[in-house]
Amino acid sequence: MKNPGIVTFLSDYGLEDEFVGVCRGVMLRIAPDLTIIDIDHNILRQDIRHGAIILQQSLPFLPDSVHLAVVDPTVGSGRRAIAIETGWGEYFVGPDNGLLIPAADSSGGIRRVHEITDEAFLLRPISRTFQGRDVFAPASAHIAAGVDPAELGAELKIDDLARIEIPVAWVHDDHLHAEVLQVDRFGNLQLNLGRPQLGQVGLEGEDRLEVRIEGHRLNLNVGGSYSDVEQGEFLLVEDSYRYLSLSVNKGDAAARLRARAGSTAIVGPSSG
Amino acid sequence: MKNPGIVTFLSDYGLEDEFVGVCRGVMLRIAPDLTIIDIDHNILRQDIRHGAIILQQSLPFLPDSVHLAVVDPTVGSGRRAIAIETGWGEYFVGPDNGLLIPAADSSGGIRRVHEITDEAFLLRPISRTFQGRDVFAPASAHIAAGVDPAELGAELKIDDLARIEIPVAWVHDDHLHAEVLQVDRFGNLQLNLGRPQLGQVGLEGEDRLEVRIEGHRLNLNVGGSYSDVEQGEFLLVEDSYRYLSLSVNKGDAAARLRARAGSTAIVGPSSG
Amino acid sequence: MKNPGIVTFLSDYGLEDEFVGVCRGVMLRIAPDLTIIDIDHNILRQDIRHGAIILQQSLPFLPDSVHLAVVDPTVGSGRRAIAIETGWGEYFVGPDNGLLIPAADSSGGIRRVHEITDEAFLLRPISRTFQGRDVFAPASAHIAAGVDPAELGAELKIDDLARIEIPVAWVHDDHLHAEVLQVDRFGNLQLNLGRPQLGQVGLEGEDRLEVRIEGHRLNLNVGGSYSDVEQGEFLLVEDSYRYLSLSVNKGDAAARLRARAGSTAIVGPSSG
Repeated sequence: MKNPGIVTFLSDYGLEDEFVGVCRGVMLRIAPDLTIIDIDHNILRQDIRHGAIILQQSLPFLPDSVHLAVVDPTVGSGRRAIAIETGWGEYFVGPDNGLLIPAADSSGGIRRVHEITDEAFLLRPISRTFQGRDVFAPASAHIAAGVDPAELGAELKIDDLARIEIPVAWVHDDHLHAEVLQVDRFGNLQLNLGRPQLGQVGLEGEDRLEVRIEGHRLNLNVGGSYSDVEQGEFLLVEDSYRYLSLSVNKGDAAARLRARAGSTAIVGPSSG
Repeated sequence: MKNPGIVTFLSDYGLEDEFVGVCRGVMLRIAPDLTIIDIDHNILRQDIRHGAIILQQSLPFLPDSVHLAVVDPTVGSGRRAIAIETGWGEYFVGPDNGLLIPAADSSGGIRRVHEITDEAFLLRPISRTFQGRDVFAPASAHIAAGVDPAELGAELKIDDLARIEIPVAWVHDDHLHAEVLQVDRFGNLQLNLGRPQLGQVGLEGEDRLEVRIEGHRLNLNVGGSYSDVEQGEFLLVEDSYRYLSLSVNKGDAAARLRARAGSTAIVGPSSG
Repeated sequence: MKNPGIVTFLSDYGLEDEFVGVCRGVMLRIAPDLTIIDIDHNILRQDIRHGAIILQQSLPFLPDSVHLAVVDPTVGSGRRAIAIETGWGEYFVGPDNGLLIPAADSSGGIRRVHEITDEAFLLRPISRTFQGRDVFAPASAHIAAGVDPAELGAELKIDDLARIEIPVAWVHDDHLHAEVLQVDRFGNLQLNLGRPQLGQVGLEGEDRLEVRIEGHRLNLNVGGSYSDVEQGEFLLVEDSYRYLSLSVNKGDAAARLRARAGSTAIVGPSSG
């Protein structure tokens, strides 16, 4: 891409306040013809990992653009503001806390990264509590309007960037220890586990499995769509990002199991 | 209309997740100049009737365009994806479960309908859980960009489309059995009853009526605006869609009556 | 500005319903090339003061434009609909209930104000319950498209406009009686008190202060950013609008103190 005038925008700002609206205003003051695509502003508060997962999963469906992402629990401290250019020529703008890395890795990897420091491109004075507005939004708008990130500040070493770990399911005996990555509005529990991984414990072809989670022991079908089981029944289904999701047909698995992001799910051979 | 590059978008995806954002991304990848108008993404989960009501009521206020609507409890089963062209030249894209029909009927009726099957216009592989992203969003963007729906798949018989029933108030003796169609943020209870219908039981000119709902018996004024009664008082008011709404001036009728969409409201002559 | 085709939009309509979407539709039917910037639709229900505060605080970050704002508890009564032109050439459209005044005062003051009455520019029939859709949205779109507000109705006397009071912190002995202006998603409590005002009671340079609020007595640090204190600790921090905010590093001050907009906060010298 060469700066097509699109910014995608993800944050934990919520929509209860004016935070997102003010960032939109800041960007459109700088670049009136900008197209802003809101991805998700309800990332769990200050949950960098949740933001990183959603950004990475959404990326294949977004236009080549500047991806602005803000989940920033240490705003105002020494953490750096960064602009990443990827191997595929996309840009990621946000805090240097690991949030941007998984998505950037999915966009051809990090080619260059610059710190964002030049106040000529930022709002002054820079507040120490709302740098989405004062730093990240204006930097994103300038890059989308054609400014080279090298103008925003010094180049950084890629190896020095902060990183976070997105957990991977692991094998123990004949079962897999998985974790709930996220829960959606419908109560579907996305596990950090794809169908091919079931082969690691010889379960790839099974059409029934056992899942233990939050004190429950479920024996359930592995289905292709929710309606492969009766209404109200649990199933494991490959979700639209190709992860296995623990779901209920026309029901809310998270509510029924009192499970949430981070819950452990042990997946093994069915006993019934 | 001839494909003016506008898609309106209604769903039950909520704004807690990235679903809506990802659909926006998919559409803007296909048609970068598209204008997307978000109508409402908080349709009650999997409630086709609620979605159909809101889509139909909103329609007169929307530009001629492609109307994308997704409330899709049987996603991934055999239900068809469809694109409707109406008598007034608008398009409706969504699942064949009745959701689109009342609005299409309000747009000059259904002129033609095509199934959406040609994968050249869709995202592949088509997931069985998120067809808003993989089927409906891309089909909408292509139609808004000028593709004839006939290119998307086979023509269907209009009589074969799934339909839903939106309940109509009915007469019993000297009163009307109505139903709450929807509840808004302010707690106003929209009944499936317009003022002219009161004439069916000789109550059209009354300025006081009795309403029985969820165990309450209310004798209340029929007003033209909320402030026709004192703060905190109930009234029946013609809402902006010309339905009668059971409301409280500066208060929340739904909370006070513990009523909700589907609650029965019996409307008759006032006894006090 | 001379009508740049931008409308910013703030309301208490929430995003649970189709209200905002329908207003967007109405505006884009009138002015298809309009850019609409949603600022905040979760103003507390019918809370004019909250809306006025958010609109005023957001304004410096928004493009010159038509600012549409609707918090309208007396819709359908005699209250007037108005269009304000400011000293800086911006426009404000909304109800004559005080909502628009603080922001207009921050935009160079009110230069002219017109009532909005000419039905040629409005939706007919004008409902008495949803004038955002029928009056304010169409008027805003027409002004953004170049219509002079004088065409919408009669000029009004500026002195006759309804006004509201935004409370100001006041001095009592050696402490200040402040009030919580608003609470954000993160639970930060914004006080109606800036750092310079602390000088009124000789506390400007203090790095510790006492705050009494909702039965709690807190002795806390005055910091520059949240992370100036340990995780879970209270602090006073200058927020991004330069008000003092009572906050918890990586925590939710509002939840821990059971405080909310309107709570009194007495700020004085630290006793510990």
